[in-house]
Amino acid sequence: MMQAPAFTLSQLAERLGATLRGAADQLISGLATLQEAGPDQLSFLANPQYRKYLSDCRAGAVLLTAADADSYSGNALVVANPYLAYAQLSHLFDRKPQAAAGVHATAWVADDAQVDTSASVGAYAVIEGGARIGAGVTVGAHCVIGARSLIGEGGWLAPRVTLYHDVRIGKRVVIQSGAVIGGEGFGFANEKGVWQKIAQIGGVVIGDDVEIGANTTIDRGALADTLIGNGVKLDNQIMIAHNVQIGDNTAMAGCAGISGSTKIGKNCMIAGGVGMVGHIEVCDGVFVTGMTMVTRSITEPGSYSSGTAMQPAGEWRKSAARIRQLDDMARRLQQLEKQLAAVTSSGNASSDA
Amino acid sequence: MMQAPAFTLSQLAERLGATLRGAADQLISGLATLQEAGPDQLSFLANPQYRKYLSDCRAGAVLLTAADADSYSGNALVVANPYLAYAQLSHLFDRKPQAAAGVHATAWVADDAQVDTSASVGAYAVIEGGARIGAGVTVGAHCVIGARSLIGEGGWLAPRVTLYHDVRIGKRVVIQSGAVIGGEGFGFANEKGVWQKIAQIGGVVIGDDVEIGANTTIDRGALADTLIGNGVKLDNQIMIAHNVQIGDNTAMAGCAGISGSTKIGKNCMIAGGVGMVGHIEVCDGVFVTGMTMVTRSITEPGSYSSGTAMQPAGEWRKSAARIRQLDDMARRLQQLEKQLAAVTSSGNASSDA
Amino acid sequence: MMQAPAFTLSQLAERLGATLRGAADQLISGLATLQEAGPDQLSFLANPQYRKYLSDCRAGAVLLTAADADSYSGNALVVANPYLAYAQLSHLFDRKPQAAAGVHATAWVADDAQVDTSASVGAYAVIEGGARIGAGVTVGAHCVIGARSLIGEGGWLAPRVTLYHDVRIGKRVVIQSGAVIGGEGFGFANEKGVWQKIAQIGGVVIGDDVEIGANTTIDRGALADTLIGNGVKLDNQIMIAHNVQIGDNTAMAGCAGISGSTKIGKNCMIAGGVGMVGHIEVCDGVFVTGMTMVTRSITEPGSYSSGTAMQPAGEWRKSAARIRQLDDMARRLQQLEKQLAAVTSSGNASSDA
Repeated sequence: MMQAPAFTLSQLAERLGATLRGAADQLISGLATLQEAGPDQLSFLANPQYRKYLSDCRAGAVLLTAADADSYSGNALVVANPYLAYAQLSHLFDRKPQAAAGVHATAWVADDAQVDTSASVGAYAVIEGGARIGAGVTVGAHCVIGARSLIGEGGWLAPRVTLYHDVRIGKRVVIQSGAVIGGEGFGFANEKGVWQKIAQIGGVVIGDDVEIGANTTIDRGALADTLIGNGVKLDNQIMIAHNVQIGDNTAMAGCAGISGSTKIGKNCMIAGGVGMVGHIEVCDGVFVTGMTMVTRSITEPGSYSSGTAMQPAGEWRKSAARIRQLDDMARRLQQLEKQLAAVTSSGNASSDA
Repeated sequence: MMQAPAFTLSQLAERLGATLRGAADQLISGLATLQEAGPDQLSFLANPQYRKYLSDCRAGAVLLTAADADSYSGNALVVANPYLAYAQLSHLFDRKPQAAAGVHATAWVADDAQVDTSASVGAYAVIEGGARIGAGVTVGAHCVIGARSLIGEGGWLAPRVTLYHDVRIGKRVVIQSGAVIGGEGFGFANEKGVWQKIAQIGGVVIGDDVEIGANTTIDRGALADTLIGNGVKLDNQIMIAHNVQIGDNTAMAGCAGISGSTKIGKNCMIAGGVGMVGHIEVCDGVFVTGMTMVTRSITEPGSYSSGTAMQPAGEWRKSAARIRQLDDMARRLQQLEKQLAAVTSSGNASSDA
Repeated sequence: MMQAPAFTLSQLAERLGATLRGAADQLISGLATLQEAGPDQLSFLANPQYRKYLSDCRAGAVLLTAADADSYSGNALVVANPYLAYAQLSHLFDRKPQAAAGVHATAWVADDAQVDTSASVGAYAVIEGGARIGAGVTVGAHCVIGARSLIGEGGWLAPRVTLYHDVRIGKRVVIQSGAVIGGEGFGFANEKGVWQKIAQIGGVVIGDDVEIGANTTIDRGALADTLIGNGVKLDNQIMIAHNVQIGDNTAMAGCAGISGSTKIGKNCMIAGGVGMVGHIEVCDGVFVTGMTMVTRSITEPGSYSSGTAMQPAGEWRKSAARIRQLDDMARRLQQLEKQLAAVTSSGNASSDA
């Protein structure tokens, strides 16, 4: 059985540069929410709506702002940003197995591929000709790394990831299982009703510190490369079509789909299920709410939405039917305004008389 | 060539506890719809709109309710619920290969993993340290079972399924190809515009008799576990984020996406393409229609919908433009009501005069 | 380092049957857009909105219609359809590795499987009993080909594709990584709140010249087969449920989801994120715009849409609230019309008086 790691509060305070209030030698062996944390666990208060749970909290210690710490009598680590402090400490308690350096006996590596001696290549992984695997990289079991593809230092690929040929991945990139990078985009020319395939001769270039979710697909470029900026975070089941460009530090939630050649700016947040048509541009600093259909470029930072609010199905059927009558309703409304104006003026005339 | 299995009608009647009308020794070697069934096939009538096909049906026999059997002259197996009877018999005619017990010569099993002797582990499968594979389990070719993960007895994993570490699967669970269970959820803390990764230290717990569709992803918990109840059925391409909880016997159709920490009750039906925001609760017995955007908790059982009805694109463009004018229209409507009330009262005054 | 292939303009002209204007011996070693092409690259003008880039174009040559060539002074290949000509030439410059014929030493092939001697089977691929792999087929690394499944001549499967048992694939079919063909569809009969699995005993039949995108899933039929016609093109992350039928040369973009037993005609275009309910029919020649919810059959060719247009989130919240009031607004509008008619007639009466 694997022993959980444990740290004293003073060790954790030192690691964070936090102010320690309470028992410096309290042992912490895990993290949990305010409601669930026990005496050997650390918790945190980031969302004000959970402040109510602080009074009954049984945690061994809590990450708090100075303001919140004043009203808390238990052990506390006082920091400027408790959520960020939690993020930093979370890695201490991660039970994700660390792969040993070296190439697994069952992996297949092409003669002219280069694998750094500090990298780990898992069982049955395939590294094709000309590929290069950087220092400290983990290539999970069953990954396939295509010809001439590169993975920068410190990368971590879960089992069962596919990189096609000529995919260039930056440093410290995390790719979850089932992701497919560099697949052939949806390019066809129509010849008298029959679709003729267009070879997709571009590649994919992915920056540093990117994360790519499970079963997400990023297609290679048709001519130039598909580009994913530094610090971009993509959730699961996302579809990035050929020649999309995504700016630095943009985050995109699950099931979003971005059509070909669309360019998204930096520091955007694209919520789950959003769809974007192709060949548009979204500027920096845009937030698109869940399931929004983006059919035109966005040139101003801010929040954008589409769709209708959920209703009980019976009421919804009425609303949906009325929407189809909306153009007629608008015309009738305009007609009423004219008629009423005529009545009012004739009424005025009449009252004048 | 593989011989199709064949059963006499009396054998099938006995298996179902059905009343047999007609030729007891009729041989049945397959199942088909009422329109397509031939003399050696069994069919069924479940949906009343297909009753019209009964008169010309050429099936060797039909599963019918007593009421429908009265008006049918062919061979029949009379049961209370023909659709359920069809479900029960369908397994007799399934040509899905049965894996032999034992570990394939090419599979890689860690020394401290436990594989029951009655389990089957397919070609190139990887079973990591501390994992336990129960009695009668099938682990398909190319599956990767992470460290300390458990699969309860009678489970069936198609080829190419990933379980990360610390995933606990109940009994008789079916997982289709490409599914990823236990991936690292989308957890990041924003530090001055840069996303810092939060280690996802929870696991996934899946109940008994669950089915998980092809390329569906279920993320591990951030702190506590992601929880899937007994008898839950998840279709293909579904995205279940970290710390979601799904109650017993809830069914969810393809391409649905559930955001983090949302809790869905028991016996719900979530149709295809539905999206739910995070941190909400859906009570037991809720039906959400296809592509609905669920942005708030649902506290009453019943059916819920959002979205607009499909129109020819030209009409739709008008409706969509009008929706953007709706707030203005509502104000003008209110204004008209006031004006008309004034006119009417002045008109009344005038008629009084 | 791999040498890029190079062709003279006259070679390319001959290959296309194009009229060459300019330097016949100009060497072309790649393709690029009008803005990005350099002196050794060929470009093309297909979309009129890019005509403005022609004047500053530095390409070694451009694929042009006769009309556009008249106003262009550089080297040109004059063709009837520049986009189609580009599609044809694109394959000359594709750096996708060509797999050598033969079965990789690490692949596992059942004794009774048939692999044509001209086919290529990649590392760790699994070919199960009774499967047949046709002439010139490439089966990528880590593919799993189920029992009795067939792949017609000239097919190309990327790494990590799953075919279940009894899947029949036509000629020249391309399947991208992560696709799953023949998974068990979502079929359950409800017995007192508990879902009983229905064995999915149909197969999948896929025509010639089909393309299937990365992580797309096509379920096997419940009774009869799921059918994909000739020349159908499916993008990434698409979900095709059991017993769907798709007609010849229909194209479907990413993230679309088609529910069970729905039948789509020939030469349709289904845009990204479209969802269709089950058991409906869509006739030939239908175009469905992105993210449309198709809840009923379509019997007339043409374009169809649903959804609302994106707005800034503040305005959207007002629109969404008003939509929920629409039925009430419609009634009030009707009421106003009645009242105004009464006022007008009484006004008339009054003016008559």
